[in-house]
Amino acid sequence: MSTPRATKVTPLSGFPEYLPEQRVVEQHFIDVIRSTFELHGFPSIETRAVEPVERLLGKGGDADKEIYGIHRLADDAGAGAPARESELGLHFDLTVPFARYVVENAGRLAFPFRRHQIQKVWRGERPQEGRYREFTQCDIDVVDVGELAPHFEAEMPLVMAEIFAKLPIPPMVIQVNNRKIPEGFYRGLGIEDVAGTLRIIDKLDKIGRDKVAALLVEAGRTAEQAEACLDLAAIRTEDTSFVDRVRELGVEHPVLEEGLAALASVIETGMAAAPGAMVADLRIARGLDYYTGTVYETQLVGHESWGSFCSGGRYDELASDGKNTYPGVGISIGLSRLLGLLLGKGLVSASRMSPSAVLVAVTDEGSRPASVAVATALRARGIPCEVAPAAAKFGKQIRFAERRGIPYVWFPDAGESGDQVKDIRSGEQVDADASTWACPPEDLRPQVLAVGE
Amino acid sequence: MSTPRATKVTPLSGFPEYLPEQRVVEQHFIDVIRSTFELHGFPSIETRAVEPVERLLGKGGDADKEIYGIHRLADDAGAGAPARESELGLHFDLTVPFARYVVENAGRLAFPFRRHQIQKVWRGERPQEGRYREFTQCDIDVVDVGELAPHFEAEMPLVMAEIFAKLPIPPMVIQVNNRKIPEGFYRGLGIEDVAGTLRIIDKLDKIGRDKVAALLVEAGRTAEQAEACLDLAAIRTEDTSFVDRVRELGVEHPVLEEGLAALASVIETGMAAAPGAMVADLRIARGLDYYTGTVYETQLVGHESWGSFCSGGRYDELASDGKNTYPGVGISIGLSRLLGLLLGKGLVSASRMSPSAVLVAVTDEGSRPASVAVATALRARGIPCEVAPAAAKFGKQIRFAERRGIPYVWFPDAGESGDQVKDIRSGEQVDADASTWACPPEDLRPQVLAVGE
Repeated sequence: MSTPRATKVTPLSGFPEYLPEQRVVEQHFIDVIRSTFELHGFPSIETRAVEPVERLLGKGGDADKEIYGIHRLADDAGAGAPARESELGLHFDLTVPFARYVVENAGRLAFPFRRHQIQKVWRGERPQEGRYREFTQCDIDVVDVGELAPHFEAEMPLVMAEIFAKLPIPPMVIQVNNRKIPEGFYRGLGIEDVAGTLRIIDKLDKIGRDKVAALLVEAGRTAEQAEACLDLAAIRTEDTSFVDRVRELGVEHPVLEEGLAALASVIETGMAAAPGAMVADLRIARGLDYYTGTVYETQLVGHESWGSFCSGGRYDELASDGKNTYPGVGISIGLSRLLGLLLGKGLVSASRMSPSAVLVAVTDEGSRPASVAVATALRARGIPCEVAPAAAKFGKQIRFAERRGIPYVWFPDAGESGDQVKDIRSGEQVDADASTWACPPEDLRPQVLAVGE
Repeated sequence: MSTPRATKVTPLSGFPEYLPEQRVVEQHFIDVIRSTFELHGFPSIETRAVEPVERLLGKGGDADKEIYGIHRLADDAGAGAPARESELGLHFDLTVPFARYVVENAGRLAFPFRRHQIQKVWRGERPQEGRYREFTQCDIDVVDVGELAPHFEAEMPLVMAEIFAKLPIPPMVIQVNNRKIPEGFYRGLGIEDVAGTLRIIDKLDKIGRDKVAALLVEAGRTAEQAEACLDLAAIRTEDTSFVDRVRELGVEHPVLEEGLAALASVIETGMAAAPGAMVADLRIARGLDYYTGTVYETQLVGHESWGSFCSGGRYDELASDGKNTYPGVGISIGLSRLLGLLLGKGLVSASRMSPSAVLVAVTDEGSRPASVAVATALRARGIPCEVAPAAAKFGKQIRFAERRGIPYVWFPDAGESGDQVKDIRSGEQVDADASTWACPPEDLRPQVLAVGE
């Protein structure tokens, strides 16, 4: 708790905070995401915010992850830095902690284990538009022991498509590929460095076809190989016709066939369950080495330059405890990035900042208990409300409600036969009884709506 | 994302994590708390996890708060420690960040401003039973500019009493006092060091009456003064009879009268709105210097030794921006401590770990699309479900559901006339249509229930 002070306060770059009306939007998004995850049978878990730094760094000791370490200020007073092996850091995603949680609790979880996880993560990156140092991720994963059935790879994007359809946002398109397609195709072309080739192809969105072709040749591919790789990456279809388009390129390899069949199966499931939500897009590579099968990215139609808001894929070894490995498939919504765009561009807004549907007016401080009794009766029937802060003139009490977007003001004992309630938007005032009155359902809670573009 | 590794994983002391079925309990508590806060018109805000260390320390530079600083690991490579003035730390409560948020956004908030905030906080304390290094707090506060109306002090505990009544927990009693009562009483006795006396009285629960009396005398009070202070602290009434009990002690002071009137008003409001939920308890002191009026603590009946699970009070100066001060009143549930007791002692449990009410069985992998279609139809009607992971023998699929507590298994095309559904608890299997079937409402979601003591 702070003692009062007049210190100047300034926002911290990269740590966004919302005003109450923006938070209404964020909560609506989280509620839709969570309830849809639950509709699909994904229980919630939360993991602690910190992991041992050694685990966060991984065996590669990759410093690019921009990890925040934590240290007790009380320890700073002592001599020297804290021992490295005991150092803790803030998690930078939800996958590393989930992998650790699965291994730690493997004996107490039922496999295949599905879970959702909606939490903040932290990265010490240089803040820039759409990049934050603290942000919220919404993940689902299914993991199993040893083997994971392929149908889960079709299930993941369907859950996300259902969420996108429920949210007040422009259309989303989930772009799906299978790592085995480029892998088999490249091998069929005689390319041995599959990962290196994929990494160059992944730059297509940023630097364009010509520069990627040049980079491929620089990296040792022939001009013909480069051209074929680029032709593969250009294939994008809403149905399974990508299979024929790939075959027309005349490259053959058993791994390619595996990938085509797997992707066709995912796209077929998508066409049946969520027409238009998915496309097969053979340029999707996902830079991360651990994906081994289906990979996903997601674009907001009309805002493609903002990159992917929802990504993931299949990995064969999420974690290992020496005895078992845990293959899985997961997909994650970058909620803060999505809201950053939508709120920043004014594409979505809340109908009001207050949860209250009703402000109960106070005639004079002596009758405040009567107003409190009205509020108690309304709440008992699930109607959010609050009592006016002061027995000011009614005009002032109405303005108090207006300022917060509260649609109704209740006047105890205002009419001939008892209470009255005013819809302050229309000005209509009618007799009302707190034990029976109801407002239209859309007035009960703040509504979150897309703003016409 | 981690690459697979076989590192041993061990829990971190003080950073509790829940299994999915325990998390169901936590989520139920949070849902009840949030929806009740909203019923009472408290919008949600969230603040970033970090504040400048200078702000966290306060002007006293109090190191007792056990703050975790954060630092970018990438900076460790550079020479020397990061500049102190730019250092950030994890918040250790929600009050300091809320005070900063109010000052930072004062021009964009409507006062009196009410908000709720449910977030994790961190303290680098030595972990012990019921004390964590990462834990969740659930706060409500009302703040105003310059002056705050006293009726808000009666409103806060009523919100909490409503929450406690809705949760599957033993009875809670909110103990209320007003700082002005001991202050006026001590001054009426001729005691000048009010704060010092309060601090000693605050030890009553821990060391008992005799030792407190000795400490008071050691600190310069007379034996008579000490006795009177202890008599005051012994007063505890469920109604406003505490006023007469105090008057019987024969001490007079205008500040005492103010405090008695204010506490009587809070208790009267409580008796009217939530009989039995509050007691006037004149030993409640709250060690923190910034409380100036009503103070609250809360005991779980039968578990008094665990201390307070819900505390707060009135403060005259939450924050100041040089021009204005912001008085407020707030109260906070220590959710992690409460759940630590309830889960640790097995006093509460969830009916199942899975959100799914139905497992849709798969007859063979070829007919999986039919099972997915059933699941889609059920979800469209708000019934959480999942499709079996493999077309195993039905007995195995039923055990899959059993293991997760899923109450129903759906068999596509199992009957003469179409689908059938089995309640695996009773074994009853009936014809069913995914477009009309419904289960009892209590089966739709996991139920969280008190376990008989």
